[in-house]
Amino acid sequence: MAVYTDVAAEELAEFLRGYDIGDLLSYKGIAEGVENSNFLLHTSCGSFILTLYEKRVAEDDLPYFLSLMAHLAERGVSCPQPARNRNGEVFSRLAGRPAAVINFLEGMWPRRPNVGHCGAVGEALAKMHLAGLDFPMFRQNPLSVAGWRPLFDLAGSRADSVQAGLRDFVERELGYLEANWPADLPVGVIHADLFPDNVFFLGDRLSGLIDFPFSCNDILAYDVAICLNAWCFEPDHSFNATKARALLNAYGRARPLSEGEQAALPLLARGAALRFLLTRLVDFFNVPPGALVKPKDPLEYVRKLRFQQSVKTLSDYGVTQAGCVA
Amino acid sequence: MAVYTDVAAEELAEFLRGYDIGDLLSYKGIAEGVENSNFLLHTSCGSFILTLYEKRVAEDDLPYFLSLMAHLAERGVSCPQPARNRNGEVFSRLAGRPAAVINFLEGMWPRRPNVGHCGAVGEALAKMHLAGLDFPMFRQNPLSVAGWRPLFDLAGSRADSVQAGLRDFVERELGYLEANWPADLPVGVIHADLFPDNVFFLGDRLSGLIDFPFSCNDILAYDVAICLNAWCFEPDHSFNATKARALLNAYGRARPLSEGEQAALPLLARGAALRFLLTRLVDFFNVPPGALVKPKDPLEYVRKLRFQQSVKTLSDYGVTQAGCVA
Repeated sequence: MAVYTDVAAEELAEFLRGYDIGDLLSYKGIAEGVENSNFLLHTSCGSFILTLYEKRVAEDDLPYFLSLMAHLAERGVSCPQPARNRNGEVFSRLAGRPAAVINFLEGMWPRRPNVGHCGAVGEALAKMHLAGLDFPMFRQNPLSVAGWRPLFDLAGSRADSVQAGLRDFVERELGYLEANWPADLPVGVIHADLFPDNVFFLGDRLSGLIDFPFSCNDILAYDVAICLNAWCFEPDHSFNATKARALLNAYGRARPLSEGEQAALPLLARGAALRFLLTRLVDFFNVPPGALVKPKDPLEYVRKLRFQQSVKTLSDYGVTQAGCVA
Repeated sequence: MAVYTDVAAEELAEFLRGYDIGDLLSYKGIAEGVENSNFLLHTSCGSFILTLYEKRVAEDDLPYFLSLMAHLAERGVSCPQPARNRNGEVFSRLAGRPAAVINFLEGMWPRRPNVGHCGAVGEALAKMHLAGLDFPMFRQNPLSVAGWRPLFDLAGSRADSVQAGLRDFVERELGYLEANWPADLPVGVIHADLFPDNVFFLGDRLSGLIDFPFSCNDILAYDVAICLNAWCFEPDHSFNATKARALLNAYGRARPLSEGEQAALPLLARGAALRFLLTRLVDFFNVPPGALVKPKDPLEYVRKLRFQQSVKTLSDYGVTQAGCVA
């Protein structure tokens, strides 16, 4: 939950007169997004989300992910579309902060994802990857392999206070991944954070992908690996191969994985697990005392990493090569 | 901002099947209401607010204020109306808590109330008082004169840490008000918390009154006094007699104040100031360390109380008797 920047009705109405999205009828600060202040607006033209970007989002990155959402939406990917103001800009300033208005997507994220959800997210991810192929902007992934050691340097020395031996475990894995990270796999635009709370459904139908501030250019199959970790484990930490099969096969039908991508997937999934393990460790040691937000459990990703270390081939994910081969 | 109780989409959809308000399309936790968890719902029938009542709202009081909103709305007062479920109930349970669904009112509360807003709120308050006259239920006001000494006992001993001499100042005022509180003024249903953030406007038009958990039976003119304190002071703490005149005259045109009510108004305004001074003091000393919510400033109400102590008659509020006399 964010520390909200309040916006006066008078100031917001004035800001919105710079857009062609109708008259403001109401707005509510919403309790989503940890790093930004978000408001749900009703106007005479419909519903919108207003985001005020707080300090952790670099203003330099806003054009990338706002333009990306517009690009994807124009190519039929259901995702929020930024409104342009009368100067043609996708963001401007409100209450001293960069601010953007996007259309509101109806839908709800599944608290208990089932096999059908996993198939739908696999298909949507592949279509997003295809739609992003001709996106002309470039943003390096600050949280890919080169970004992990700085996180380890921040949190590693205290890792053993979370679990005995965790520091060594993470350092060994980090060294292994740095030495073996693949350099020749297909790259493109990835979402990089497609957890269940970023995928909306109406009933069984996927209604949209949201929340693009981690989007960047990186290995496409790394995005698949992030989803395997985020969608295919049960609350008891067991791996659900039926869900993985549904996700990978649906992905492969829309964008077949090459043999190289398939072979690398277990390694990429180790990297994806380490990436979230590291950011959760850093967050775990940086919770302000008395904060209302409970930090996410780093140990969840220790367990996922241990599982991925045990995977040898895609058959361990329940997939025969036929499903997603190029 | 509340500590939110999260509700799973699946659980909420099931809960809403008990109502005839359409299919759930989306819901967002909203950052309003300190004591409850509130969600803005979109359904195929429109927008609604779902409230989960947390511990500080006594479940016994829910029927009073939910029934009151239904009663007022039926009599043309623009306020949220609770939906009844298929069993005819205005609340039931969700996520282990009492839960109610009310229709969503469009509108925004004025961050910088002007004279026009003050007139509109005076008129709406009088009409609410009239519409409540035949409301059959009764709820004692726990925060009227009899409720103030227990608050003083909680916070008084530490008052001097907020301002030197504050303890004695409050105790003297409390004794005076206990000895002189009027017993023979017209009573009825009051809102008891009609601050600017509980009154919505669309442009200059008042679109609704919200947030009734403090509503109760008490002296009607005490509600007017609460509004005088809440609406007619400027950010620099000066009293704006033009706003007070607009509020009182508009009230008086819809429900003329009797001579007794007019004469008592300055005393009632002292009481209204002391009531919010005391609850703010208690809250001030009970902020959890690191909480994101900044406590409201008790000294704002010390200043208002000092002003009200200086008022002798309604002419100090800028009002000639003609405007609101019975």
